[in-house]
Amino acid sequence: MPIPDIAWFREAPKRRRYLAGISGGADSVALLHHLHRSGFREVVVCHLDHGLRGKASAGDARFVQKLSAELGYPCEVGKAAVKALAADKGHSIETSAREARHAFFAICSRKHRCPRLLLAHHYDDQAETLLWNLLRGSRGLSGMKEVQTLPMGGRPMECIRPFLGHRRSELRTWLESKGLSWREDATNAEPFAVRNRLRNEALPLLAEIAKRDPAESFVRASGASEDFRVIEAWAVKQADAIDPQGRLHLPKLLTLPRALQAACIYAYLRTSGVPDLSRDAVNRCLGLLDPSAAPAVNLPGNFILRRRAGRLLLAPLR
Amino acid sequence: MPIPDIAWFREAPKRRRYLAGISGGADSVALLHHLHRSGFREVVVCHLDHGLRGKASAGDARFVQKLSAELGYPCEVGKAAVKALAADKGHSIETSAREARHAFFAICSRKHRCPRLLLAHHYDDQAETLLWNLLRGSRGLSGMKEVQTLPMGGRPMECIRPFLGHRRSELRTWLESKGLSWREDATNAEPFAVRNRLRNEALPLLAEIAKRDPAESFVRASGASEDFRVIEAWAVKQADAIDPQGRLHLPKLLTLPRALQAACIYAYLRTSGVPDLSRDAVNRCLGLLDPSAAPAVNLPGNFILRRRAGRLLLAPLR
Repeated sequence: MPIPDIAWFREAPKRRRYLAGISGGADSVALLHHLHRSGFREVVVCHLDHGLRGKASAGDARFVQKLSAELGYPCEVGKAAVKALAADKGHSIETSAREARHAFFAICSRKHRCPRLLLAHHYDDQAETLLWNLLRGSRGLSGMKEVQTLPMGGRPMECIRPFLGHRRSELRTWLESKGLSWREDATNAEPFAVRNRLRNEALPLLAEIAKRDPAESFVRASGASEDFRVIEAWAVKQADAIDPQGRLHLPKLLTLPRALQAACIYAYLRTSGVPDLSRDAVNRCLGLLDPSAAPAVNLPGNFILRRRAGRLLLAPLR
Repeated sequence: MPIPDIAWFREAPKRRRYLAGISGGADSVALLHHLHRSGFREVVVCHLDHGLRGKASAGDARFVQKLSAELGYPCEVGKAAVKALAADKGHSIETSAREARHAFFAICSRKHRCPRLLLAHHYDDQAETLLWNLLRGSRGLSGMKEVQTLPMGGRPMECIRPFLGHRRSELRTWLESKGLSWREDATNAEPFAVRNRLRNEALPLLAEIAKRDPAESFVRASGASEDFRVIEAWAVKQADAIDPQGRLHLPKLLTLPRALQAACIYAYLRTSGVPDLSRDAVNRCLGLLDPSAAPAVNLPGNFILRRRAGRLLLAPLR
């Protein structure tokens, strides 16, 4: 069986340096072998031991170090006491594990002067993310992107997910056909209890009930969400509701449908740096469009949005 | 416990005639009592015996007839042999049951000269519908609307769902507090195996995994989908890609982002009466924007979309 033909591995510059987040599980091991067989030479393997699986964690780290050495890649191994971190900060194990990983990637990024990070997330991970985001109450169905700049421990990094369009089963089949081994539980090393239950219980049940693959349905719907976001951004620009002084122009806003008024206000507040914007905050701002309502709304980050002379203006709260 | 305060029951004209689809289950029995206690006098109860639960079906019908008589409402009872219809047409039981119900409502509508139909669908039904549509691969998260004109057996009827914002539990609690009875299994009379499994297995599992109510998450996301549709419609209108001769204007289309090009093409084809429009059909039409590609695309319903002199024109296929 040939390497699944994935454009990124063909097209990305082979001599550029990449960090690769490698847990030792099937997906990341497949990533590492794909990189090697596609001729990438400047790969830095980054493995964080979350300290959550006892001796097995140390075994994962040794496995990744050994594999890296075989392929001729340098390997950075970090160690975090995720449980203690979680207890310390009162965060969940999931959140603490992610923070520890991001901080570790940021350290590797500085050390190797490399702002690019390869991750082994695939199509099935994407479906789980979409379902999880939906369950958590996100408005659109938003998931991971193939290339996405994300802050990692305060450092913006380009995250690249070449497998995002490919199925977990495809990667396993390929590994098996090549006789390549991996650490069976390493991808579950991070105790994403919720993610594991979505994968092992919820998605199979939904597949059985619907008699079709829910992963495909979720990924398809998320494509529609992406399209909507592009159209929304175009509409906000077209609505042209910001005046030359950088204020929201009420008479223009009032000609728009409610949903677009909300999108314009959201875009204005976000661009202006208001943090933690919720739908509820935007709804309160929409209230300002009623000339008989109170003329100001308090917002997160000590901002205030004021209505004055047919304009809405954001100002810091004194 | 007072009647839950639902604007529709207060505001709708009391002397107007309404059909009400009443299965005899808790939700529709609550609807009927709400109508009666809110002072609606011109209600025609419509009950279809799907013939799927043997003697229990006939018991449901008798229950609904008796309740209607007590409340002083006329009651239409129809009977369908859904299993035979399904076998005949090679449709699923679900599809045949829905068709039979719609045909029955159309008959009642003609007989009573009434184009309005009240249905007892509530918030939890909405969540099930949203999840089901998502699993079936719908692009946006679209559900039922409180008021919606739908074709019923070929007859456009205004479907009104006053309970859509209210929980199943709220209706049951109210019925119990009033000592009102209903037929326990009647809402499951239609053997929506899939719907029942979503309700009884999938949603509880998702709630347990996410530790929050998935119904709220789905309804919230569907609100966002509604907003997106409003913005998309505005953007299509604003894009103004139809020329005075009713053709798609290529130079204009080419200035738009891809997602909006697709939305404009979709709106044009739909308005022109092309049936069964799929995302795939729209994608093939998008291919016409490339001047080096073939200049025509075949579409469902024996239509053809042709590129000529900087325009796209829909024509019947000869």
